[in-house]
Amino acid sequence: MSKGAETRQAILDQGFDLASRAGLRGVTIGALAEALGLSKSGLFAHFKSKDALDTALIEHSGVQFVERVVRPALKAPRGEPRLRDLFKRVIDWPTRSGLPGGCPMIAASAELDDVEGPARDALVAQQKDWLDTMANLARVAAQEGHFSGKLAPEQFAFEFYGIQLMHHLSARLLRDPAADERALSAFDALIERAKA
Amino acid sequence: MSKGAETRQAILDQGFDLASRAGLRGVTIGALAEALGLSKSGLFAHFKSKDALDTALIEHSGVQFVERVVRPALKAPRGEPRLRDLFKRVIDWPTRSGLPGGCPMIAASAELDDVEGPARDALVAQQKDWLDTMANLARVAAQEGHFSGKLAPEQFAFEFYGIQLMHHLSARLLRDPAADERALSAFDALIERAKA
Repeated sequence: MSKGAETRQAILDQGFDLASRAGLRGVTIGALAEALGLSKSGLFAHFKSKDALDTALIEHSGVQFVERVVRPALKAPRGEPRLRDLFKRVIDWPTRSGLPGGCPMIAASAELDDVEGPARDALVAQQKDWLDTMANLARVAAQEGHFSGKLAPEQFAFEFYGIQLMHHLSARLLRDPAADERALSAFDALIERAKA
Repeated sequence: MSKGAETRQAILDQGFDLASRAGLRGVTIGALAEALGLSKSGLFAHFKSKDALDTALIEHSGVQFVERVVRPALKAPRGEPRLRDLFKRVIDWPTRSGLPGGCPMIAASAELDDVEGPARDALVAQQKDWLDTMANLARVAAQEGHFSGKLAPEQFAFEFYGIQLMHHLSARLLRDPAADERALSAFDALIERAKA
């Protein structure tokens, strides 16, 4: 990796960390430069604008999520076991990834929903990819005969993500010790319905 | 209402609007003063700090939510019809309330989860109240014989809120035209399970 690519990577790693705690709005060029011991102009050489930085951070978060959650889950057997493995990885991925706060993409979803621009576009594309991933794995589970042939995979993905979002709020904001248990119970019920 | 109370109310209404679009972090004393034609010091006379302003805005949002969503739903017949009415009011409450963006409390949940202080405490208390409201209405539905006596009301509330959160992301960030339909379908399934 060239020195330039290394610096860019270090900026993204630091930004990812900061976004977990304070959202994208908390990731300022100034705060990043200070945390990394770079000059603001040095940072600007890598990201010409806050918009470009936000977009890169969303893409970086997506790559981390795929590497730490989706790819390992694909090692589980196809169908229901893979979906169960995925769900368990999903609900604790910020903690397992050593992030100091919550999921940077869930934070960004609330921040960017009313802010037009390339960062929002990148986030929407990424969230659609995530929904497609869940829907595809549900489709595979139906092909494997684990789920009913009548399953609506997009509806399954919608409900899977709903449980994930509520788990995040419950664990992070409410610090409810029952968060994992409730999320798993909701997920079990979703799986049972998918079989019916 | 005294002049002071009127100004305070105007500040909160404007802040509520701003928080819907830009989150609590978007509600600065400067932006509010400008939007209202007040001096910053005039605004500071009402809210001594950004923390005090955030706390008041969270409480104000909660009052709006109770007035516009919970209280009208309580006019529906007890049990299942009341829960169905509540859900329909919940999923479009930012739009129906004329808010320019999404739900200020959902935005704040992602913003404040890692920020200790009175604003976070106020939000946690409010979110627990909301979960209690859903759980209590589910309990009433069980008493009325609409839901099974084996129902776990807190689990029901967790899943209800999960659907609400996913609907918010789907409608606001993804602008998915199927958001309402998917949310209602998930909610129908939740109700069916509550009966079993």
